[in-house]
Amino acid sequence: MLDAFINQVVPLIDEINRTFLRSLDLAPKLKEAMLYSYNAGGKRIRPVLLLAVIEGFGADISKGLRTAACLELIHTSSLIHDDLPAMDNDDYRRGLPTNHKVFGEATAILAGDSLLVDAYRLIATDELLTPTDRVRLISELSTCSGANGMIGGQELDIENENTKIDLDTLVKINKHKTGKLIEFALVAGAIIANQNEVIIEKMRRIGEHIGIAFQIKDDILDVEGDKAILGKNTLRDEKNHKTTYVKLLGLEGAKHSCQAHYEKALTLLRSLGMNTAVLEALFRLIIDSNK
Amino acid sequence: MLDAFINQVVPLIDEINRTFLRSLDLAPKLKEAMLYSYNAGGKRIRPVLLLAVIEGFGADISKGLRTAACLELIHTSSLIHDDLPAMDNDDYRRGLPTNHKVFGEATAILAGDSLLVDAYRLIATDELLTPTDRVRLISELSTCSGANGMIGGQELDIENENTKIDLDTLVKINKHKTGKLIEFALVAGAIIANQNEVIIEKMRRIGEHIGIAFQIKDDILDVEGDKAILGKNTLRDEKNHKTTYVKLLGLEGAKHSCQAHYEKALTLLRSLGMNTAVLEALFRLIIDSNK
Repeated sequence: MLDAFINQVVPLIDEINRTFLRSLDLAPKLKEAMLYSYNAGGKRIRPVLLLAVIEGFGADISKGLRTAACLELIHTSSLIHDDLPAMDNDDYRRGLPTNHKVFGEATAILAGDSLLVDAYRLIATDELLTPTDRVRLISELSTCSGANGMIGGQELDIENENTKIDLDTLVKINKHKTGKLIEFALVAGAIIANQNEVIIEKMRRIGEHIGIAFQIKDDILDVEGDKAILGKNTLRDEKNHKTTYVKLLGLEGAKHSCQAHYEKALTLLRSLGMNTAVLEALFRLIIDSNK
Repeated sequence: MLDAFINQVVPLIDEINRTFLRSLDLAPKLKEAMLYSYNAGGKRIRPVLLLAVIEGFGADISKGLRTAACLELIHTSSLIHDDLPAMDNDDYRRGLPTNHKVFGEATAILAGDSLLVDAYRLIATDELLTPTDRVRLISELSTCSGANGMIGGQELDIENENTKIDLDTLVKINKHKTGKLIEFALVAGAIIANQNEVIIEKMRRIGEHIGIAFQIKDDILDVEGDKAILGKNTLRDEKNHKTTYVKLLGLEGAKHSCQAHYEKALTLLRSLGMNTAVLEALFRLIIDSNK
């Protein structure tokens, strides 16, 4: 059932984004760079989550397609910039050379910039949503992506690369760097499905727990994963002297904590009186996946 | 009169932006980096233009303050990224070390990213504007800033750094790199002042001419200007092997072309039946200024 849902919605999201990116043709190399990283794959977890929330509330998922597509563009932008030499300095991502390796640093920086900036237009011009919903979604996404969200989390992560940090700091970094876009997916789904503020705030807390579980899983895979399956190098955290959940809690402790956050999310989700089948399957995918 | 207008509105714009940036306090160094470049000065030409249009139509400039502030944040972002080693590799800007020189490349990249992303929230949450006007302004700004606008223009500029280009290509680059945000200032002012589509499109053409005049003036200053007054190195274009208007048209030809675009803008402006006093003075400032 989850597979059917993914197979239904991912091509729709990809079609919106590919058509949109192809229309950005002033500077052909820049367009190619954006399409390269967009097409490098990934499971489109965030847009699928957003649409699964709408579906769970029995609302029309077509109303969420452009917001979901926009979210994936913002995510793609963050991957391009995170891989830059001045940041994590990664050569491979999803089994392919990173953007700056192919297009050069200048174009990679500008491709990330464009993805951030142009993405908003997908929401701003979405005629299936009221202008009031559009400005709310844009404001939410701006908060979740910006200096008090994902980008701020990336800054904290980089600042703490060679520092010993405690669990609270690690949670703070991950809550923002990874968690905020996942939180946006859940909150946006509830907004588009016309839910009330109490439910929207519960969705935010679910997003927080799933975001942390997602990051712990990522840390575990960095130790246990198979490079061939992951499509990127493992043991990068060790190389970059990063404090991880595995380092602070041990491998078993990290797995236990991941499970605990997953269960908290599940309990909250089941309290909402919505159809949770697809969402629960998605949460399990996040926790169980090997890449 | 222009001075009085500038002295009235610039402190209002700066107050909005400084308060906003100070609230982005998750990662203190990131916040400092954003404030550093914002506070490095500049004449705030773009937001002043936007507000002068509103004033010229006899509308309430307070309705344009947050959009004007947002525009200056986007402009600040572009300066930080343009100065990066992978781009123009500049050490000084407005007489001060560039952002990456002070905060490091990673933080400079993220500061530029945040400014791009967070800026939109100033418009999205502006309760003095209708949600319909807000989404239109966001859509316009996204187009003018993104891959088919300012960022695309910067990409074309970098791609052509060591190439001989003709006047058409140079105009195309500048129209986007420098021109699009100036165009946005004029268009946004007309939207906020509730003008009709014919007038909005005339404003766009005025913006194009003023944008080109502005860039030609910049090229002239790179040859004729005084480093101490400009606050940045001169002869950078020569160093970076950039084709400029001065190179293609000669110094006198460039001055003539600058004047011609200025006069076209003025003729269009005077056809609109608005109060053009402040705007005309501003246009003259752009053409005559020595920095």
